[in-house]
Amino acid sequence: MHAIGVDIGGTKIAAGVVDDEGRILASTRRDTAPDDVASIDQAIAEVYQELSADHEVGAMGLAAAGFVSPDRTSVLFAPNIAWREYPLAQRVRELLPDGGGDVQIVVENDANAAGWAEFRFGVGRDATDMLMLTVGTGLGGAIISERELVRGKWGAAAEVGHMRVVPEGHYCGCGHEGCWEQYASGTALVRDGQSAVISQPGRAARLLELCGGDEHKLTGPQITQAAQEGDGLAVELLATLGRWIGEGAASVTALLDPELIVIGGGVGAAGDLLLQPVRKAFADQLSARGHRPEAQIELAEHGNEAGMVGAADLARR
Amino acid sequence: MHAIGVDIGGTKIAAGVVDDEGRILASTRRDTAPDDVASIDQAIAEVYQELSADHEVGAMGLAAAGFVSPDRTSVLFAPNIAWREYPLAQRVRELLPDGGGDVQIVVENDANAAGWAEFRFGVGRDATDMLMLTVGTGLGGAIISERELVRGKWGAAAEVGHMRVVPEGHYCGCGHEGCWEQYASGTALVRDGQSAVISQPGRAARLLELCGGDEHKLTGPQITQAAQEGDGLAVELLATLGRWIGEGAASVTALLDPELIVIGGGVGAAGDLLLQPVRKAFADQLSARGHRPEAQIELAEHGNEAGMVGAADLARR
Amino acid sequence: MHAIGVDIGGTKIAAGVVDDEGRILASTRRDTAPDDVASIDQAIAEVYQELSADHEVGAMGLAAAGFVSPDRTSVLFAPNIAWREYPLAQRVRELLPDGGGDVQIVVENDANAAGWAEFRFGVGRDATDMLMLTVGTGLGGAIISERELVRGKWGAAAEVGHMRVVPEGHYCGCGHEGCWEQYASGTALVRDGQSAVISQPGRAARLLELCGGDEHKLTGPQITQAAQEGDGLAVELLATLGRWIGEGAASVTALLDPELIVIGGGVGAAGDLLLQPVRKAFADQLSARGHRPEAQIELAEHGNEAGMVGAADLARR
Amino acid sequence: MHAIGVDIGGTKIAAGVVDDEGRILASTRRDTAPDDVASIDQAIAEVYQELSADHEVGAMGLAAAGFVSPDRTSVLFAPNIAWREYPLAQRVRELLPDGGGDVQIVVENDANAAGWAEFRFGVGRDATDMLMLTVGTGLGGAIISERELVRGKWGAAAEVGHMRVVPEGHYCGCGHEGCWEQYASGTALVRDGQSAVISQPGRAARLLELCGGDEHKLTGPQITQAAQEGDGLAVELLATLGRWIGEGAASVTALLDPELIVIGGGVGAAGDLLLQPVRKAFADQLSARGHRPEAQIELAEHGNEAGMVGAADLARR
Repeated sequence: MHAIGVDIGGTKIAAGVVDDEGRILASTRRDTAPDDVASIDQAIAEVYQELSADHEVGAMGLAAAGFVSPDRTSVLFAPNIAWREYPLAQRVRELLPDGGGDVQIVVENDANAAGWAEFRFGVGRDATDMLMLTVGTGLGGAIISERELVRGKWGAAAEVGHMRVVPEGHYCGCGHEGCWEQYASGTALVRDGQSAVISQPGRAARLLELCGGDEHKLTGPQITQAAQEGDGLAVELLATLGRWIGEGAASVTALLDPELIVIGGGVGAAGDLLLQPVRKAFADQLSARGHRPEAQIELAEHGNEAGMVGAADLARR
Repeated sequence: MHAIGVDIGGTKIAAGVVDDEGRILASTRRDTAPDDVASIDQAIAEVYQELSADHEVGAMGLAAAGFVSPDRTSVLFAPNIAWREYPLAQRVRELLPDGGGDVQIVVENDANAAGWAEFRFGVGRDATDMLMLTVGTGLGGAIISERELVRGKWGAAAEVGHMRVVPEGHYCGCGHEGCWEQYASGTALVRDGQSAVISQPGRAARLLELCGGDEHKLTGPQITQAAQEGDGLAVELLATLGRWIGEGAASVTALLDPELIVIGGGVGAAGDLLLQPVRKAFADQLSARGHRPEAQIELAEHGNEAGMVGAADLARR
Repeated sequence: MHAIGVDIGGTKIAAGVVDDEGRILASTRRDTAPDDVASIDQAIAEVYQELSADHEVGAMGLAAAGFVSPDRTSVLFAPNIAWREYPLAQRVRELLPDGGGDVQIVVENDANAAGWAEFRFGVGRDATDMLMLTVGTGLGGAIISERELVRGKWGAAAEVGHMRVVPEGHYCGCGHEGCWEQYASGTALVRDGQSAVISQPGRAARLLELCGGDEHKLTGPQITQAAQEGDGLAVELLATLGRWIGEGAASVTALLDPELIVIGGGVGAAGDLLLQPVRKAFADQLSARGHRPEAQIELAEHGNEAGMVGAADLARR
Repeated sequence: MHAIGVDIGGTKIAAGVVDDEGRILASTRRDTAPDDVASIDQAIAEVYQELSADHEVGAMGLAAAGFVSPDRTSVLFAPNIAWREYPLAQRVRELLPDGGGDVQIVVENDANAAGWAEFRFGVGRDATDMLMLTVGTGLGGAIISERELVRGKWGAAAEVGHMRVVPEGHYCGCGHEGCWEQYASGTALVRDGQSAVISQPGRAARLLELCGGDEHKLTGPQITQAAQEGDGLAVELLATLGRWIGEGAASVTALLDPELIVIGGGVGAAGDLLLQPVRKAFADQLSARGHRPEAQIELAEHGNEAGMVGAADLARR
């Protein structure tokens, strides 16, 4: 059965028709306003109609950044969109011709959806127990246990970025300190790069050059570029990011014993400059090493379309 | 169906016949030698024969401290008993008359078994998603997700005690630093008490009295007793233990979103002196508080027999 | 001998004539531009002429935020004013009639000057070994050892705010992480208050009210006010600030063994709500407690004028 | 003037005649019992008589591990010898013929004495502001500020090993957690080595070989030997030790701004394998780097005799 997946971002939605093997047969997008939730409903209805005109679809999955109700119909809370206990599936359905007929409409957390895509159609296709880590602005995740997505009692599971890794560590936007995503994210990479420009001026020449002399304009891709050129400081910055990813992954592994840990997000562009420190740190911190099989750590195969694909696939199950 | 549960400790085994509602109908025990794995097999065979003489049993569950193979037949590694990839179920079966007939024999991790007992017959009987924390010499745990025990890919899940909570923190017997169980265990409670006797001599009079003037003989129950008498230092020590339990539980909750967190182990005797600091710390550290339902935190209802009961119940499923 | 003290801030200078007992006989001020160092020289020359018209003065001390050269003539580096190896004393002298005659002109670090005022004329007047901690936007300090100011080899001693107290802790503007001033300053107090508004919304009603509903406008005095009214969260916030001050002071005491630790800066307005947690944390963390005399911890007696008074007194020595 | 220096250890004393240039002209030793303080007094009296028979001496300095009274006559508290407010100088004097005549007898903390020797006659001979770090079983230190030893108000300064570097870090024998000496000492090196044998068995082959297969018998010199042979794990262990020394030294430098940091103790045998990580970590953590001159970091020139030499020299001043 074909299904539509919709990835709802802060200012736009991207949607596609996804077949049983995770291929995107057609796609489209709309701009939206994060403060106007009705505009999002409307946009979803539009993309549904556009895509279903040419494809027969039996389900639609809506990937949203936020806590999703256990029955997968509502968004309980979202950090960046004004949803508060919002019955998203129902609101969209009301805008569809014939109420959408018997098309199944479900809401999924976007990180869960992306992890599911990787599990079903990506590097995790042969796995049964998998941890997905999406290293972007923050650190998102998904947990697959015995081929099932772990959503938790109230749909709030896999908020891996808020596992505390340093007591009284970096401030987090969530109001706590030391959250993993403050150490293992693209934001942390850039922040550490900016700090290094100040504390180690003698080593930061290339980074300064790339950001035009203003460290406030430094970006993650610039750090990756410098590292790929061999810049010592940039290599260190990626290694520090990798260390935090790997050390945290070892803690999660103590809890969940996955066979596969998948690293997604833009930092994957750094390749082995990131992956090798991740693997070393994971091995250094893995409990009972030598007495247990060890999880593989791999880069994700899907890119930005993972949320769309995963939401579509989850909707039709 | 009645089942036998066997709790295999370092120097003895305890076994019982458990009915469908988790009641122990009969029980027995044997002494064993941790270095002589054959003696353990033999003792298990003996208790099986003793208990099955008077009760019809269809399954036997063996609760063992160690990593259990995914097919629940073998112990891959145990810290305190000389098992290394040991086919425990098969070895026991070979010692039974008629090879045990068609009785199902399964091996389970002891902390998982204890958590399962609490989930099925204890404070978690109405829960679907639960975290069990057994606070004893170390910190053990069990994870129940959607009514299923999470064992992980290779049977090593729920090793909660080795989630790292303090980078470069207390040394752990596992060879790492900062493991949760070095902060949230009876051992940590006693160690902190001993330290306080040295660093805060003026406040430690009652503790010193209880341990006969030698802090090396201080015990957890002495600290609990002093706290219950109102001793300020002892109350603080329990509060510190509770804080670590609660803060770590908040990190696990970021990953798993359980509805119930159960605290087992001897420290439960401290009651609210422990439980209130656990709850406060959990609330203080819970991510997205106010935007999500919050897990209840309760003491376990079962005591030492939990491993036996849980193993029996898991065996017959 | 009377001396002039000048406290050079980012946008203004304050100057006064100080007698042998630390009393300010006359004072004046000028606005300045931090990017125009010549305007600062000129303003200093003006206040000198104004004040020396009516008072016979033998020395002038210039208190500056920055690293001061060991010969006390130059500012090597200042974070907020465009001085780089700047011969401040000489530049000022060139602007004085008759080159200032034989008036002694010396430069001092402003935190050192403030600590010296407290040592000579304030709460430390009977001490020989003292640690001053000025808790403001950052955390400044001064060290008095055997009645002498400790300046270090290159004038950069007593930068107490950059002692690291949490490895990989809060980011600091200096480019490092975990600096003491990121935990023990008015800035940290406000930052923690803002975090608490997010993470503990149920307890933050009074703080939110005081800041007009916008936590970005929360101030330290508002937290102090709420605490004085009995607000539980505000009391906790001050206690956390106090704990960090006291714990860090215990580390400094391991190095320097002072008899007196003086807390200056605006947070002193919180009185015992701050001081008692400082003292408790200091006692809890003091090494070899019970085997050594313990330093007193007191609030500073001087306020904003301490830098002026201390600079004047240091100039005439 | 020649002086006798006596280094009082737990089970023996070593004494020597030291000339004005720090040379040892003659030396001797005695065994003692740590629980019998009178035997120590007696042994000191004996070595005095033995050494003064052939050399004219004007002073005797007694280097003791413990807190020394500000007037340098008594030991207030010692961790390993049964001195409690013990008037050591007076007791020794009473045992000398003619009460020792007008020979000056002073007591000094042993780490201070060792640091003083290095300052006067060793690598610090040209320095005015120096930090000595003696990395042995624990971490001792001495602080020289403007050519003077910093003793603190009550003789307890320079207990550098008890500066806290990790909140809630490694337990320390002092009853606190996270003390610097639990990370920067020979004991920490060995402890980390033992942990690595457990957590990284695949990399520990050479270390296991050197300690005869029993990690409890692992020693610091074995780790140094393995590192010098090129063993990767051993090199890492020394680098970790060096990192902690360097990072802590950066914190001390924020307070004291020395021009020279001297590393003493047996770990100096590792040479650059230790020193380079110390220097890198110091540079990485130094506050305001690039805006200040930087301290040199060097190995001590004196070995075990430093306490004797320093005590002698301090006695005659």
